[in-house]
Amino acid sequence: MNLDFSKLGGLITAVIQDHATGRVLMVGFMNEEAFQKTVETGYATFFSRSRNKLWLKGETSGHRLVVREISTDCDKDALLIRVEALGPGVCHEGYESCFFRRLEDGNWVESEPRMYNPAEVYK
Amino acid sequence: MNLDFSKLGGLITAVIQDHATGRVLMVGFMNEEAFQKTVETGYATFFSRSRNKLWLKGETSGHRLVVREISTDCDKDALLIRVEALGPGVCHEGYESCFFRRLEDGNWVESEPRMYNPAEVYK
Repeated sequence: MNLDFSKLGGLITAVIQDHATGRVLMVGFMNEEAFQKTVETGYATFFSRSRNKLWLKGETSGHRLVVREISTDCDKDALLIRVEALGPGVCHEGYESCFFRRLEDGNWVESEPRMYNPAEVYK
Repeated sequence: MNLDFSKLGGLITAVIQDHATGRVLMVGFMNEEAFQKTVETGYATFFSRSRNKLWLKGETSGHRLVVREISTDCDKDALLIRVEALGPGVCHEGYESCFFRRLEDGNWVESEPRMYNPAEVYK
């Protein structure tokens, strides 16, 4: 499907947005295989840079991301994926969104409560 | 402000979202200097990988992005910047959002009309 994976060494940026609320939940990276899996299965699948392998989001936690709509940008080097998020949050630290820290007067401030206890989900 | 610029060779991903509508407008990259400029000036400033230099968004077109809120994610390697977008669109191809192509049955389909004529703006 003609995406440009060349700029980040085989990866493209994937922005995950909640389909219903419009909230940006996380940013991940996909290689071509992860993108194909995402399209074929309907569940967001990333390439984990730290583990160097495909990563089905929610494989451990059950908090999968059900794909509702996929868009790409003018340069075809980024994806915007609108999802229905299963579970109380996408962040491995227990928050609804990974973007739970806001810049206030030069400091990063946690701006919302945890939605679940990661220690119980990631046993 | 303690962001992790190490994973993409000195850059972090910056997702730009319309403050009022929640629409994701574009994805860019910032190095530390671009991030500092963004915070200090209140206008989104990126690092252009193709031109290898700082890039004040809207410098040519006038379509600047006025920063309303900056968040970072759990790993502090991505930014979510909510903006007020000056002008009819952020995309250099004339669209409101760079994400103007949607995946439909395996094909990327333009899903919205142009908002301005790029040839007139980028003379």
